[in-house]
Amino acid sequence: MAAPIALIQGASRGLGLAFCKHILNNKPLASVVATCRNPNGADELRGLVGQHPDRLTVLKLDVNQEEDIRGAAERVKEAFGRLDLLVNSSAMLHPSGKGETSLRDVSAQGIISTLTTNTVGPLVMAKYFSPLLLKGSGGFGQQPSEKAKQHSGIIINITAKVGSIGDNGLGGWYSYRMSKAALNMATRNLSIELGRSRPKVVCVSLHPGTVNTDLSRPYHKNVPKDKLFSSEHSVNCLMSIINSLSIEKTGKAYSWDGAELPW
Amino acid sequence: MAAPIALIQGASRGLGLAFCKHILNNKPLASVVATCRNPNGADELRGLVGQHPDRLTVLKLDVNQEEDIRGAAERVKEAFGRLDLLVNSSAMLHPSGKGETSLRDVSAQGIISTLTTNTVGPLVMAKYFSPLLLKGSGGFGQQPSEKAKQHSGIIINITAKVGSIGDNGLGGWYSYRMSKAALNMATRNLSIELGRSRPKVVCVSLHPGTVNTDLSRPYHKNVPKDKLFSSEHSVNCLMSIINSLSIEKTGKAYSWDGAELPW
Repeated sequence: MAAPIALIQGASRGLGLAFCKHILNNKPLASVVATCRNPNGADELRGLVGQHPDRLTVLKLDVNQEEDIRGAAERVKEAFGRLDLLVNSSAMLHPSGKGETSLRDVSAQGIISTLTTNTVGPLVMAKYFSPLLLKGSGGFGQQPSEKAKQHSGIIINITAKVGSIGDNGLGGWYSYRMSKAALNMATRNLSIELGRSRPKVVCVSLHPGTVNTDLSRPYHKNVPKDKLFSSEHSVNCLMSIINSLSIEKTGKAYSWDGAELPW
Repeated sequence: MAAPIALIQGASRGLGLAFCKHILNNKPLASVVATCRNPNGADELRGLVGQHPDRLTVLKLDVNQEEDIRGAAERVKEAFGRLDLLVNSSAMLHPSGKGETSLRDVSAQGIISTLTTNTVGPLVMAKYFSPLLLKGSGGFGQQPSEKAKQHSGIIINITAKVGSIGDNGLGGWYSYRMSKAALNMATRNLSIELGRSRPKVVCVSLHPGTVNTDLSRPYHKNVPKDKLFSSEHSVNCLMSIINSLSIEKTGKAYSWDGAELPW
């Protein structure tokens, strides 16, 4: 079987960086392409390249720049000709760093920026990388014996429980919640389009829990200690979901513990 | 009781125009503020002003311009000091006029334009008009006898069944579907924030059915004749839902026949 190839978008820190480390450490044959906006400032990621020079490649990619995405897809195509796993990891809470607590804090520009990064970016990633995922070797997830149900690749969109409309009992965080609800729709649409093809690409939204990252930092004091995950712990949980994925599970949103989330 | 005041956004044609006519014809005391991007080109709306010069006011408002929205709210405040019903009606399928049939048709700019008009616009409308809705006289919907449960105003976001993530079995129309899913999240968030206040503002998403308008025109050949509604018929159905609304029904999405839609 061909060596698995994963692309982690938003890999300079937090969950994205933890995904890179996890795959490099736990999938000895896998190659990882790590993308971030500013590779020069991504010290930890560059350190990781020092440890795994043959298995880790870093590419500059701003998810808001369609040209960057197209260019990165070209590079992956030239280097590998295919892709087995795409993780869309980067997200912002709001350009101000704080979610809106009420309508007073809502601005058109704030919502548009958040939607552009959290929602449009992942879908445009899927557009340019799906041809490579359709050529993937199915190196992640579970392959059923029935050939027609096997998948060639997996797309993971990192969502959030607060992006569940049905689960929303508290309100606030307009931009972030809306961006993740729209991203869940993108997941659903992708699962339909890429579930019709043969081979198929699995697409799910995953909720990482509340993770100790820059995004959530202003809110840590409200989170019980055992509910505030390290990036490593969250990625451990998410990778065990990814390792269990098959086409039967496509088009859904799952929490870090494997529970299905309502839309 | 004070005369009801309604604001219909996107009133130059289609559903918005039909809402204006319906309210003018069926609520003899009501005043209507009709907004559209280009009042000079809105012949039918101007004709309606000729018939109802004391009850219908037309204001220029491009939902993509936060300053327009702020200015219109100022005008309504000066003229009436309050608002009882806000209907966010305008929407686009995609800047090209055709929904994406596959990922090939997806572009960052197309999604962003669609989200800006269909999702950001209605939320920014809610931001600027909610202070007036909180001062409304509750002239639309049903008021329960218990004072604490009475509402002062209603916000209607026109959604679409294809914006239901759970109901999505066909895929395609990425931008439009995502914009309406995010709008449904906005509805839910608004219902929570404005349901905590006293008085309360009811906020729901309504699906008008497939309506014979410019938006749906390219797709009419796929719609059975009895499922293709005139704007008048659709608005008749939607107004009977609006007339039945109370705070118990807030924060949900309903179809033209009153059935609750899944998120």
